[in-house]
Amino acid sequence: MSGPVKNTTFLRVRYSETDQMGTFYNSRALEWFECGRTELLRALGVPYADMEHRGVYLPLVESHVEYLGRARYDDALRVTASAAMSGRARLRFDVRVTQDVGGQDVVRGYTVHAVANAAGRPIRPPAWLSALVKA
Amino acid sequence: MSGPVKNTTFLRVRYSETDQMGTFYNSRALEWFECGRTELLRALGVPYADMEHRGVYLPLVESHVEYLGRARYDDALRVTASAAMSGRARLRFDVRVTQDVGGQDVVRGYTVHAVANAAGRPIRPPAWLSALVKA
Amino acid sequence: MSGPVKNTTFLRVRYSETDQMGTFYNSRALEWFECGRTELLRALGVPYADMEHRGVYLPLVESHVEYLGRARYDDALRVTASAAMSGRARLRFDVRVTQDVGGQDVVRGYTVHAVANAAGRPIRPPAWLSALVKA
Amino acid sequence: MSGPVKNTTFLRVRYSETDQMGTFYNSRALEWFECGRTELLRALGVPYADMEHRGVYLPLVESHVEYLGRARYDDALRVTASAAMSGRARLRFDVRVTQDVGGQDVVRGYTVHAVANAAGRPIRPPAWLSALVKA
Repeated sequence: MSGPVKNTTFLRVRYSETDQMGTFYNSRALEWFECGRTELLRALGVPYADMEHRGVYLPLVESHVEYLGRARYDDALRVTASAAMSGRARLRFDVRVTQDVGGQDVVRGYTVHAVANAAGRPIRPPAWLSALVKA
Repeated sequence: MSGPVKNTTFLRVRYSETDQMGTFYNSRALEWFECGRTELLRALGVPYADMEHRGVYLPLVESHVEYLGRARYDDALRVTASAAMSGRARLRFDVRVTQDVGGQDVVRGYTVHAVANAAGRPIRPPAWLSALVKA
Repeated sequence: MSGPVKNTTFLRVRYSETDQMGTFYNSRALEWFECGRTELLRALGVPYADMEHRGVYLPLVESHVEYLGRARYDDALRVTASAAMSGRARLRFDVRVTQDVGGQDVVRGYTVHAVANAAGRPIRPPAWLSALVKA
Repeated sequence: MSGPVKNTTFLRVRYSETDQMGTFYNSRALEWFECGRTELLRALGVPYADMEHRGVYLPLVESHVEYLGRARYDDALRVTASAAMSGRARLRFDVRVTQDVGGQDVVRGYTVHAVANAAGRPIRPPAWLSALVKA
């Protein structure tokens, strides 16, 4: 298969994720990005919880979010994530969140991750990890 | 000194803590209770971070909150916490949150904590801990 | 049908919901209770978002949580909520969260809600609301 | 005065802000950025709550965070924020978070904001707002 590995999951905006402006609070986007990464890695056959059990952690080194549209309490959202190596030592996840009904863009962005051991020290990405994100 | 050990700290409602009803989201009360406990233990001379370094953890076994009034973004709140043993093996913190200006009640409640080791298993409360909360 | 109206929904523990003790942070229980209420009301045919559009709000007046067991990142949880009137003017939701695999208890508790208008002032519960929670 | 308007505030890492990696969860950085903006605007004489009362909202259109170091529960952090217009219609806040003790970098980044009315529609930035961020 060619092209980046990709997966779509769904979630609903929680009341706890709204703020007094009536839409979602800005930091929730990064929590939804996490949901996208979690489900992508599960779809690839290596749930992130298993990765940590193997001693491989993916702490963030960078995040970027563009806020494109509103999402209100109980809106159903579609979260599409893809993964790729970023250089030899880092992993990058691109995520796009859209309204499930109507398809309007909500947020779009990416996170860049180091590959680290339990102590947080950078390690060389294991071969299975690099292979995982190269479809 | 008689009476329970007690301490007051201050915080401001963050925008991230509001919800679309225009006041704070209900679960934030438990996060403010944590701020109250943290500052009380620091005032007593044993910051909670130090307790964990000594291998003593205080996981919650129960929480109770009464919601008494509104608090909006940027409101200054007064958080007063007191501590006492609850039976021989548990610790109880009572917390009251009021508006700093005007004094109106916001939330009131308590948390009950087990005394545990790093693995989460109950341990006998160390003598220094029982002594700490008996003024 | 007799007995209280009841519904079960599922969620996975997010990484953002864990804390350094390695299990979920205590306030997340109240956010999961919200998920239980949201899905129960949807199952009853009146999504809470629709209730607010009709001008009926359910601000919390009380919450109670018992912490019964651990739940780790990515654990699948089963959230079962039931609803009943509490006196003439209030609504009570009882919620129980268990591990989907194995069935171990995680948290159990309840929230009590006023029935209010958009300004937060108590209103008499509309007949459709009382009827809704009486199976 | 020359140079951008700037302000420093302090906060402590809450337990609720940690995750099972033992440091702060990544989305908290955006909540700390909010604390930086809030205190900067207060220092400039126009608290953000007052801005919203005047009908001026600052919804995010973009956020960027670089994760530079660890911060653990109860660490005291120094949050320094500065503001500037970004083109004619947008406001940009740059924020840097460092350890108060030792000065190590924790996170650095920025948020870009539209200027909007209560309905979320873009408005021309009022003269007092542009003047505010031009020292």
